[in-house]
Amino acid sequence: MSVPQSQSFNHLTIIGLGLIGGSIARAVKAVGLSTHVTAYDASEAVRDRVRELGLADTVAETLEAAVADSDCVILCTPVGTFEGIAQAMAPHLKPGAIVSDVGSTKGSAIAAVAPHLPEQCHLVPAHPVAGTENSGPDAGFATLFKGRWCIVTPPEGADETAVARVCDFWTALGSNVEVMDAQHHDRVLAVTSHIPHLIAYTIVGTASDLEQVTESEVIKFSAGGFRDFTRIAASDPTMWRDVFLNNREAVLEILQRFNEDLTALQRAIRWGDGDALFNLFSRTRHIRRTIIDAGQDTARPDFGRETATPSAAGTE
Amino acid sequence: MSVPQSQSFNHLTIIGLGLIGGSIARAVKAVGLSTHVTAYDASEAVRDRVRELGLADTVAETLEAAVADSDCVILCTPVGTFEGIAQAMAPHLKPGAIVSDVGSTKGSAIAAVAPHLPEQCHLVPAHPVAGTENSGPDAGFATLFKGRWCIVTPPEGADETAVARVCDFWTALGSNVEVMDAQHHDRVLAVTSHIPHLIAYTIVGTASDLEQVTESEVIKFSAGGFRDFTRIAASDPTMWRDVFLNNREAVLEILQRFNEDLTALQRAIRWGDGDALFNLFSRTRHIRRTIIDAGQDTARPDFGRETATPSAAGTE
Repeated sequence: MSVPQSQSFNHLTIIGLGLIGGSIARAVKAVGLSTHVTAYDASEAVRDRVRELGLADTVAETLEAAVADSDCVILCTPVGTFEGIAQAMAPHLKPGAIVSDVGSTKGSAIAAVAPHLPEQCHLVPAHPVAGTENSGPDAGFATLFKGRWCIVTPPEGADETAVARVCDFWTALGSNVEVMDAQHHDRVLAVTSHIPHLIAYTIVGTASDLEQVTESEVIKFSAGGFRDFTRIAASDPTMWRDVFLNNREAVLEILQRFNEDLTALQRAIRWGDGDALFNLFSRTRHIRRTIIDAGQDTARPDFGRETATPSAAGTE
Repeated sequence: MSVPQSQSFNHLTIIGLGLIGGSIARAVKAVGLSTHVTAYDASEAVRDRVRELGLADTVAETLEAAVADSDCVILCTPVGTFEGIAQAMAPHLKPGAIVSDVGSTKGSAIAAVAPHLPEQCHLVPAHPVAGTENSGPDAGFATLFKGRWCIVTPPEGADETAVARVCDFWTALGSNVEVMDAQHHDRVLAVTSHIPHLIAYTIVGTASDLEQVTESEVIKFSAGGFRDFTRIAASDPTMWRDVFLNNREAVLEILQRFNEDLTALQRAIRWGDGDALFNLFSRTRHIRRTIIDAGQDTARPDFGRETATPSAAGTE
């Protein structure tokens, strides 16, 4: 699959070579973009690993060198680092350069970066809604974004050509692109990503703190449902700390809703109201089906886990 | 893999041919037990389907016929049906027959079944901690129990030979067996299974009730974490209603702990306490690793979902 050069950037800089940055680097080469990729990471160990893996055409030793002469700089670091990076790189950006990012919170991304950019540069934040529980340059892979959605959140008055180029870039990487304002993005992602992560972290913490149930028991009998939550709760702690600090209002608002709904179920259990439980449990079933029909998850039972798939069984 | 006849039952009856009952029927044949399997389901449509699939040697038309002459009867129906089934089948059980079940709540299973059994029969409840989100006779597969734990919860004074035979049966099906008392089982499973399901049902319900985020947006952007919860929330509504009605005390107790922990995180977010968030998020990571090391989940990122595995990428 090759893409016209016009849809890409001659010189792309990736700041932060974790799961997402490393996957972008791989995807750019895999889909045949003729883009020159420069990589920079604040960690020397990561820079060395990126060289070993051959993920970029150039691995820069400084942020300044990484962004000079770049047509598009994508920040792939935790959102809490954006302001410092924007300040440090701003004087070295080429006029007309596009600055983008992959952060999970967009209102805060704009607030952190926009004030520091030179007038002739264009800020076009984006958020590829994709990932795994693994972190670091080794965790990335070229097809991570394929068939997933990427949300682009241009600030008011953003340059239309710059927005189109960022949209085209993500389309070239295999994503479906949707444009919305940052505030709406933050509310949507609070539901589809931030609250699920917060809840998963919480229940895994609760389980490991019990006096009457040992951790060994939690581990052994986790196939009853708990193990699903541990996957999400194994995600990068720094990234997720920053997400919650930077999407506070939307997260607290959805959390309040969740708490009300959980309290209602708690009450139904206490009073033995089987109908209330059955009604909710029936209603949630169709959402799974819709997600599968929309190509956003596998239809295989148990996510197609190796240990529990019909195809592995002797009788089918 | 064949198993000595002494470890099995000459005549096994499965009541309820859903995911678990259907998987037991398949597994008995797949591992080479020479057991005669009789199946009974209250639904005529399920009985017909069991015949079409050839899951049992005999498909009985009545509960009475199904249990007569059986060495072991396993109840694989929702736990709310146990009392009625026990009452109805008791007069037809063979002296010395073992009655077992696969219910997710064990205290209630004993309370519902034990009072109705003839003196010469043996109650040995069990709970295979395994399953998928799918239901019905077509959802079962022979390897469902392989490498998973099965918890056996004999009531006080249970016949030791009968307990050993039930343990051996599950070992033959590939499970690791652990024996504990019913009360402890109910507390452990509240953590590893019941609360995770309750939370998943809740958040999926909350997400579908929002005014400012459409269901279409929830579906599209579910790859951020939400989609994992929808799998569990697609589980059988009747079974799960009965679980919560029958393990009320343990569920409400763990739920209280979870609520406290979630409130603490909520407060940390409101006050911008990044250290509190980071500390929890770091602490939960090792539990995932331990579960994988214990063979209770796959190490592949994203559960090895087809759409997001390194092996599907072009660059690795």
